[in-house]
Amino acid sequence: MATIKDVAKLAGVGIATVSRVINNSGYVKTETREKIEKAVKDLSFKPNEIARNMTLQKNDIVAFILPNSTHLFFGELLYSVEEELFKYGYKVMLCNSSEKIEKELVYLNMLRNKIVDAVILLTNNDVESYLDKSLPIISFDRRFTNVPFVASDNYGGGVLAANYLISKGCKKFMFIGDDAQGIHSHVMTEVSKRRVGFIETLEQHGFHDIINIEYPLGDYVVTKEMIKDLVKDYRDVDGIFTVSDAVAHSIVQIYEEMGKNVPNNVKVIGYDGGRSFLNFGKKITSINQDTNAIAIKIRQMIVNYRMQIPNVSQIVPVTISKGDTA
Amino acid sequence: MATIKDVAKLAGVGIATVSRVINNSGYVKTETREKIEKAVKDLSFKPNEIARNMTLQKNDIVAFILPNSTHLFFGELLYSVEEELFKYGYKVMLCNSSEKIEKELVYLNMLRNKIVDAVILLTNNDVESYLDKSLPIISFDRRFTNVPFVASDNYGGGVLAANYLISKGCKKFMFIGDDAQGIHSHVMTEVSKRRVGFIETLEQHGFHDIINIEYPLGDYVVTKEMIKDLVKDYRDVDGIFTVSDAVAHSIVQIYEEMGKNVPNNVKVIGYDGGRSFLNFGKKITSINQDTNAIAIKIRQMIVNYRMQIPNVSQIVPVTISKGDTA
Repeated sequence: MATIKDVAKLAGVGIATVSRVINNSGYVKTETREKIEKAVKDLSFKPNEIARNMTLQKNDIVAFILPNSTHLFFGELLYSVEEELFKYGYKVMLCNSSEKIEKELVYLNMLRNKIVDAVILLTNNDVESYLDKSLPIISFDRRFTNVPFVASDNYGGGVLAANYLISKGCKKFMFIGDDAQGIHSHVMTEVSKRRVGFIETLEQHGFHDIINIEYPLGDYVVTKEMIKDLVKDYRDVDGIFTVSDAVAHSIVQIYEEMGKNVPNNVKVIGYDGGRSFLNFGKKITSINQDTNAIAIKIRQMIVNYRMQIPNVSQIVPVTISKGDTA
Repeated sequence: MATIKDVAKLAGVGIATVSRVINNSGYVKTETREKIEKAVKDLSFKPNEIARNMTLQKNDIVAFILPNSTHLFFGELLYSVEEELFKYGYKVMLCNSSEKIEKELVYLNMLRNKIVDAVILLTNNDVESYLDKSLPIISFDRRFTNVPFVASDNYGGGVLAANYLISKGCKKFMFIGDDAQGIHSHVMTEVSKRRVGFIETLEQHGFHDIINIEYPLGDYVVTKEMIKDLVKDYRDVDGIFTVSDAVAHSIVQIYEEMGKNVPNNVKVIGYDGGRSFLNFGKKITSINQDTNAIAIKIRQMIVNYRMQIPNVSQIVPVTISKGDTA
């Protein structure tokens, strides 16, 4: 059976370039792409099958470090990752860090000691100096030097939300999210781009007086009471974008208690688009993070590590799903 | 350092009896208990410390098989189990079975092959014949022969709900839950006792015309539409107990859409009492399953297996938490 090396040799390119074409990630010149696609065809090269054969009978363990698996989006991401990795013979070990760096380091040490084969890292701690960059580590939504990351298109999500609210005739906008580059200032998070994409798009359309609400980062159970005080002075707002569907739910309640009708008087867009919200009150209009697509990217990167194919960071597209709130 | 065997020898009893006293589980005669407590004191026996010393530096892996970790209660149980086991040196491997027996068997085989050290099993499949009873298996909420289980006091929860609704003056009652002993008739589940405890208590108080609604088991995302058709003919009901908080949320919406005020016209009690519900609409009055207490029982049983102390099944008490719906 043909290997990725055979494909690279026949096409006269490097393995990394073949990988970019196979995974449809990163720029490859059209001419080169065609050469590689011809080589893949001529050699009947089947990348997924190879990956499967390499791993299906193994019990490779991937540790997934995240703050809290009961956070609705993290929980759905964990579910998708476990489902996807299982198909390729990987088992997922769960680490709820509760933001404690000591607990995160236990799993990073297990990676060093080969007890786990790879780590998926979702952290707000500055673990940069503890990461052995020669080992298979994939970051989610956070940037560490020389560690590939996967994130959904947070900036694009902000753009989508802004354009949608503008199209619905909103005039006075608010963003509400966590202080993503404040408290944890050493960790570059992709999440803050939701705010940036939203505000920049509004400004491009001539809207400048945008209310920007920040609550402390890392409070994964943000209560209605916490937010109420922060937004109660902004009765004239008619277009709101929030950092999660959970916060959006609270915002809907708070504004309805102020006597506003959602979506007639004020429109609210959330973020995440999780299935867990199907049953609870008004269905939130939301920017969907596709946890299955994210899980596939993570799996591809883990398989790449195994095959010694260089990884590049991946941005997964988002979509807007129409609910009852905007 | 004294061992549990030393304690048993000094007290003139068996190891299992010492274990019952240490874990405060199961009946032990007062006289025997006092002998054991004296031996524990005389030998300065510290059971938790021993367990810790035995396991803290290890990387023992416990596989947790459950249908779907995005189910709110299962997700919280997973979180509590991971937190509790980590303190004792155990790492949790997650298996979202999606009810597929093939996937469950992969992890049960890993137990046979010593890749994992214990399995926590939450299943609706009849895996009885696949279980090697000589290995460390703990069932949650389901009964298999010669496999110890942990469950919350489902019957007691039904009693609590019935008494609460009676005390609030309700006259016409409904239970809504899954058909827990219908479709999966080979698996004895503890969950069906919620219904039994509720109905038996009402009958003891002279209420006999109780509406009993069943939807198919295993639909972990029960939509409002599914339930609406089942309950729409019961406008005169004024006291409802449901099998989960998620279903309770839907019921509240359905009855409010029928023009009923919750809790003034109709009172609704859910089950689970999860933190995840803090933010969404009316806070559900609920029977709380204490996931931390359940996790401690599971951890004790896993440590017992390691120490070759016989395990007995454990029922964890429930409480009622007052919300906005009853």
